[in-house]
Amino acid sequence: MIQQIILKSRPSGFPTPDNFETKSIENLPVANGMVRLKAHTFSVDPYMRGRMSDAKSYAAPYSVGGPIVGGCIARVIESQAEDFKTGDFVMGYLPWQEEIVIDVTGLKVIDENLAPLSYYLGILGMPGLMAYFGLLDIGKPKEGETVVVSGAAGAVGTVVGQIAKIEGCRIVGIAGDDTKVNYLLNELHFDAGINYKTITDLSSAIASACPSGIDIYFDNVGGEISDAVMSHINYGARIIICGQISLYNATSQPTGPRVQSALLKNCALMQGFLINNYASRFPEGIKALSQWVGSGQMTYKNTIYHGFDKLPEAFIALFSGKNLGKLIVEVE
Amino acid sequence: MIQQIILKSRPSGFPTPDNFETKSIENLPVANGMVRLKAHTFSVDPYMRGRMSDAKSYAAPYSVGGPIVGGCIARVIESQAEDFKTGDFVMGYLPWQEEIVIDVTGLKVIDENLAPLSYYLGILGMPGLMAYFGLLDIGKPKEGETVVVSGAAGAVGTVVGQIAKIEGCRIVGIAGDDTKVNYLLNELHFDAGINYKTITDLSSAIASACPSGIDIYFDNVGGEISDAVMSHINYGARIIICGQISLYNATSQPTGPRVQSALLKNCALMQGFLINNYASRFPEGIKALSQWVGSGQMTYKNTIYHGFDKLPEAFIALFSGKNLGKLIVEVE
Repeated sequence: MIQQIILKSRPSGFPTPDNFETKSIENLPVANGMVRLKAHTFSVDPYMRGRMSDAKSYAAPYSVGGPIVGGCIARVIESQAEDFKTGDFVMGYLPWQEEIVIDVTGLKVIDENLAPLSYYLGILGMPGLMAYFGLLDIGKPKEGETVVVSGAAGAVGTVVGQIAKIEGCRIVGIAGDDTKVNYLLNELHFDAGINYKTITDLSSAIASACPSGIDIYFDNVGGEISDAVMSHINYGARIIICGQISLYNATSQPTGPRVQSALLKNCALMQGFLINNYASRFPEGIKALSQWVGSGQMTYKNTIYHGFDKLPEAFIALFSGKNLGKLIVEVE
Repeated sequence: MIQQIILKSRPSGFPTPDNFETKSIENLPVANGMVRLKAHTFSVDPYMRGRMSDAKSYAAPYSVGGPIVGGCIARVIESQAEDFKTGDFVMGYLPWQEEIVIDVTGLKVIDENLAPLSYYLGILGMPGLMAYFGLLDIGKPKEGETVVVSGAAGAVGTVVGQIAKIEGCRIVGIAGDDTKVNYLLNELHFDAGINYKTITDLSSAIASACPSGIDIYFDNVGGEISDAVMSHINYGARIIICGQISLYNATSQPTGPRVQSALLKNCALMQGFLINNYASRFPEGIKALSQWVGSGQMTYKNTIYHGFDKLPEAFIALFSGKNLGKLIVEVE
């Protein structure tokens, strides 16, 4: 028997351990074209909160009673499929299970000699690609421009900041504790960092950190942090809506200052985007990110939980803002 | 002596007659390179409300004690400038004065045989160009898509709707009285029209009028009308922020439902724009609009006030939503 974690009930507001349940399921034989995988590292990501609700969205909701599914790196421990050898590591969207027998469609073999395995869930995976296409394709940064990123010390924000530096921009990060801000300044070479939890006047702090105003705002969090940013955007500003983690647990429609007048006065653009729109260009993004990582121009950190049973706790921790870099759960 | 209308005080909230004052000024001689103009038709436009405030914006504020300036068609009654003959009609941005002696820089001779004079302030002027570039360049309509326009019976909205029809879209107009809605349906051939003032549930009415959702929202008004529209946008929607007339008289920062989550879930774009960004392409827009007008594919209406002293009253009327089509003041 193997362990599986299912969605027991849909969260109302913040997710809690009660929303999850561990159950034992049968181990199955490996049919032709299939592999048996042993989970190695799970990715927990903010978008998964959306799939726990039944509101209309871009991704189908998880079923109550069904498994949680997310990004995962696993090891092939038995194979009846061509191109997949025992011992290979693969990356895919897999249910929260210790082991699984699965058709190989959608699985991708990854090479642990090219980059640490966990990077395939982070800087070389979805978060890195979100930073890459969001900043470069929507933001179109120009040398000397000022870029502000919220959730700056997270899985996406740390990549946004480093790409912005490579592009010759002034990069200002907003994060929720001093350890994160120090990391941004000292290890990622951000030009300025703001701890929004300790600052008394966020708008003034942003104004000080952005003496030439804001040309690009890469928004991972939404809410009051974004309100403060919006009052400092420049003419022609680009606002990239990548995430709104501060609002994902809201139980009613969030309200706040209307943004349309600021967009109008500044001829500014606000664009929501989903990474799957860029699927045909993933190889381009992965190539560029791999080169930056390989040359040492970019670095990446994980916050790691250990043990299959820690998955719910790790997922819930996303919303308390405790993780620096990518939050992952190692199970092997 | 000639009459001039000045900004006596900055409006707080809705403008009132007290914010304006008429004074008499000297008539000047016409120096070389100059013309004497007699005002013929003034344009009153929502953006002028912004210039009455001293808040930072794209256009410099009017000075208290100085003249109001806006779009105007005038007749040359004396000329010391090449290319400007007595009797010519010109279009320019002119102070609210019965007559003016002015350098010809910025004046453009217009031809009353090509189109009615007033059209140069409307469908062939700034409002028409806003509709043209906003809808086509930002909205990029595709045949069969659904376009919603707010302020649909106004100077910009009536042009937006007619271009959308020409592009093969389903066009739904939101306006503030039944006369306007009937005009949209019967004379401009909109597919549906909604009177937001008499409908009990605007969101349901929009859903009924847009059975395939909304691909493009051309926003002239903002506020609660836009809130209702935003809950029906489609994946890949484009929201063009052309005006926010419902908010121009707000005395504090307007608040409302946050739009970022809807933009994110739908990979939607929201873009503010100012017509001057398109200055280099005005000839293209005027040519296309002129052809549509000339061929009878497009029609245009004015709401006309008569008399120089009616300028403040006409301007104030913009914000009560009484005008159908372009609001102008004829003084000759």
